[in-house]
Amino acid sequence: MRLALAQIDPTVGAIDDNLSLILSYIERARRSKCDLVVFPELAVCGYSPLDLFWQSGFVDRMQEAQEEIRKASDGIGVIVGGITSKRHHDGGNTSDPSSVSDGAGTDLFNCALFFADGSLVASIPKLNLPTFDVYSEKRYFTPGPGAQVFTFRGKSIGINVCEDLWADDGPTDAQASLGAEWIINISASPFFIGKGEIRHALASRRARENGISLFYANLVGGQDGVIFDGGSFVTSPSGDLLYQAPYFVEGLFIMDTDRAEAIEPKQQDAIAAARGAIVLGIRDYLRKNGFSQVIIGISGGIDSALVAALAVEALGSDAVSGVFLPSAISSEESRDDAHQLAKNLAIKLVDVPIADLVAASQAAIEGGVSGLAAENLQARIRGMLLMALANQKNALILTTGNKSEVAVGYNTLYGDTVGALAPIADLYKTQVWEMARGMDSIIPQRIIDKPPTAELRPDQKDEDDLPPYEILDAILKELIEENASRDDLIAHGFPKLTVADVLSRYYRSEYKRGQLPPVIKVSPKAFGIGRRVPITHRYRS
Amino acid sequence: MRLALAQIDPTVGAIDDNLSLILSYIERARRSKCDLVVFPELAVCGYSPLDLFWQSGFVDRMQEAQEEIRKASDGIGVIVGGITSKRHHDGGNTSDPSSVSDGAGTDLFNCALFFADGSLVASIPKLNLPTFDVYSEKRYFTPGPGAQVFTFRGKSIGINVCEDLWADDGPTDAQASLGAEWIINISASPFFIGKGEIRHALASRRARENGISLFYANLVGGQDGVIFDGGSFVTSPSGDLLYQAPYFVEGLFIMDTDRAEAIEPKQQDAIAAARGAIVLGIRDYLRKNGFSQVIIGISGGIDSALVAALAVEALGSDAVSGVFLPSAISSEESRDDAHQLAKNLAIKLVDVPIADLVAASQAAIEGGVSGLAAENLQARIRGMLLMALANQKNALILTTGNKSEVAVGYNTLYGDTVGALAPIADLYKTQVWEMARGMDSIIPQRIIDKPPTAELRPDQKDEDDLPPYEILDAILKELIEENASRDDLIAHGFPKLTVADVLSRYYRSEYKRGQLPPVIKVSPKAFGIGRRVPITHRYRS
Repeated sequence: MRLALAQIDPTVGAIDDNLSLILSYIERARRSKCDLVVFPELAVCGYSPLDLFWQSGFVDRMQEAQEEIRKASDGIGVIVGGITSKRHHDGGNTSDPSSVSDGAGTDLFNCALFFADGSLVASIPKLNLPTFDVYSEKRYFTPGPGAQVFTFRGKSIGINVCEDLWADDGPTDAQASLGAEWIINISASPFFIGKGEIRHALASRRARENGISLFYANLVGGQDGVIFDGGSFVTSPSGDLLYQAPYFVEGLFIMDTDRAEAIEPKQQDAIAAARGAIVLGIRDYLRKNGFSQVIIGISGGIDSALVAALAVEALGSDAVSGVFLPSAISSEESRDDAHQLAKNLAIKLVDVPIADLVAASQAAIEGGVSGLAAENLQARIRGMLLMALANQKNALILTTGNKSEVAVGYNTLYGDTVGALAPIADLYKTQVWEMARGMDSIIPQRIIDKPPTAELRPDQKDEDDLPPYEILDAILKELIEENASRDDLIAHGFPKLTVADVLSRYYRSEYKRGQLPPVIKVSPKAFGIGRRVPITHRYRS
Repeated sequence: MRLALAQIDPTVGAIDDNLSLILSYIERARRSKCDLVVFPELAVCGYSPLDLFWQSGFVDRMQEAQEEIRKASDGIGVIVGGITSKRHHDGGNTSDPSSVSDGAGTDLFNCALFFADGSLVASIPKLNLPTFDVYSEKRYFTPGPGAQVFTFRGKSIGINVCEDLWADDGPTDAQASLGAEWIINISASPFFIGKGEIRHALASRRARENGISLFYANLVGGQDGVIFDGGSFVTSPSGDLLYQAPYFVEGLFIMDTDRAEAIEPKQQDAIAAARGAIVLGIRDYLRKNGFSQVIIGISGGIDSALVAALAVEALGSDAVSGVFLPSAISSEESRDDAHQLAKNLAIKLVDVPIADLVAASQAAIEGGVSGLAAENLQARIRGMLLMALANQKNALILTTGNKSEVAVGYNTLYGDTVGALAPIADLYKTQVWEMARGMDSIIPQRIIDKPPTAELRPDQKDEDDLPPYEILDAILKELIEENASRDDLIAHGFPKLTVADVLSRYYRSEYKRGQLPPVIKVSPKAFGIGRRVPITHRYRS
């Protein structure tokens, strides 16, 4: 059989555009003489519309689009992620208006829709609804009933949706035991470093345990901070990889299932993969929100250098402008490095000195401000000027903060946090260096080598205020990604006072993280939608 | 029986402090010769720790605290909201690190713990786990099994948790059919206007249908933007109100169940109730986050006047400072009104003129900026100066935006959105006027009467840019709270062009709402945690 994995990049809520995209892929598959074309989870609406599912008319419009897909399935099989709905009458908590407006009264099912030859063969609802990390599926969906198996072009096929592959004793096993030779899983699986290998290991195990061929069609594209990385693949009943689509790229990937031979899986480089995710994330954020220009505050330090280099990779030099905003404290070295970087990247860089404005702001306030208030003042003047330039040019600001500084609040709210998207706020500082070292043909070596500084007071160095980044990042990783307690961290050998200092900074900076732009996720636990922590709390582990 | 409703205001995560509070209330109940004392849902940890539940050691510390409560139940019955946990071994998606860190491998149950005479009588897990609006309970909890009934001091008692009362054919009905004479429901039920009446109607119906007495113990207190309003009550088997605790106040409320007589429910005034919620929300946000001072940018307009008046009501005059930040455009009338307000409220007000800084900022940017960029610049200079003053005084800024302007993006990100808490951002402009009119002994009449203006360009009036607020607010209410579509709005008689304009403004300002501080919720659908909408989307209803 000729089978096409349609690894597409729909836009959330753009149902008409997504329909056009899907129809064009069906047509391409038909022209390529494919028997079956498989689209990812929720391809019709993008992943995820979240509360837009509850807007009057949203699901109706999806269903109209799905009807068009049915009609287009003449002479071909089409599996596509969509929605089915059912009114229910159990009342629920219909006395509470906030529940009524949240879609009570209608059950929604996150489905794989299987069309063939102009008919709906079946809609297969998702059974396992993830509600951890970035997922909120139990907020919207009702779990589907048990497994089914279909015969298509002589093959016995089980179809399931994303998390249904991950659940032990779940739909995949059940469909195999009902006689499925093939399992087709449609996914919207977000990227983090190492995710591709985890998927392959899972797929290989499921295939071997059940003696089935596994077809995995994943979404691609950036959605706020969440990046779907594609990398759709096919696994043989012996657990070998038979086909591998590229990561971070939209495309129709066709294989002849009768002629497939085992291929060697390529190990993804962790930092290269993160770079691919960030580049796609920047590009899709701009494109899907209708912007074409970004502005970046270039300080001469490594964070802004990396963000600028990634932005140029995503958008091209013409789409990126830098602004160097020196204060009285900024060094000549910073200016030289900023301009050398801009030259390497072939981007415009303007100098907007802030010393006079700092003085004027201090003069405006009776008695002036000192200490941290004065340090923050400089960062906020920079934020204010960047926003003025961005507004004037209809550009978006990319925020340059990294995960280490965001975690300990070593940043200025409304200062360096200003922006529409935070591309590297899920990279620890040690990862920022690693990624920058891989781009040292464009990022000046001196920027990579110099000790980091916020340049908000004379001779300031990050490590005067913070633990060395190797130690800080190791603590933060256990704290954020593994939920380590104070005792866990001390038991793992970190110095008690350092742990206490880091925890204190981490807990008291939650309010700043609450006002960040979307953070591009490259780790199992990024700041933003996948991490829900109250601002007001007094837990101290 | 003497029964005490312990309507307490715990702090999220402050497990030791909450334990002390609970033990002191048990002791007070014992001294008052109560047989039974009932605390709200999740009283041990506060509602809700969200992802803190997954921090290593969090649940253990709750369980240690719960053990102390058991020991303190000597000679008295205690019902209190807490947690039980159970390791499970089904594997789940243990191959995905982001699921592992999110508590996979352990089931948590949101329980009513029933202690008596030093023993745990039972832990009753919640069955209905709300995952709409501000709730995310399916992210954390496993639903409990069926209903049980206990005999205590000769009474047959069914106990359940919050949403379990709201579900038709739910635990309340099941417990009644098992012979319960009393149903005790422990809740953490957030306020919105009219919620008290909705609860009473529900309780009355449940009581009558099942012939049971209903004891409803609700949490009180502010948690970021969510306000638990207390108002615990008791309903007779004929559906009459027997006891009503006050709203927005912590306390131990004792009744003799053998002597209770029907009382007339008091209708809450909608705006007065919202005012109570906002005042409690401001007070608790400051207290629980360890701050005692607020700063407010006072413009001479009604929004900042109302926020200042509410802040004084919450914190007292000494805790509130105003800053008047006139530009070249600001009128003398604005200055007079700002100062008259400050005088009425007995708060300090300093003038910090911004005209020179606006000019200096324009001069810093080659060619300067114009139009919207120039308007925003003024608002951002104000935000920057307010933050400098707030940092210097260790004060928090209260954001003065209302729901109408936040909904259509008629505000400046990092300008007037700056702040730690947005007290009136769930009040439509028409509600702002209504609340202000009720405070006209302190808010100058001229502030209430004058047409609203952002004063960012000469002779600007809100209604030059926006539809009249009566129409705008009516559209927004249907859109936000009822998920109305464009067609719905037009069918309800709103002008087509006005609807198009409002929808366009609403959709394109989502990025600003993504960076707001917590919004105090007074409606069924407030901006913030209870409304989850992607920034990147192209849905246009």
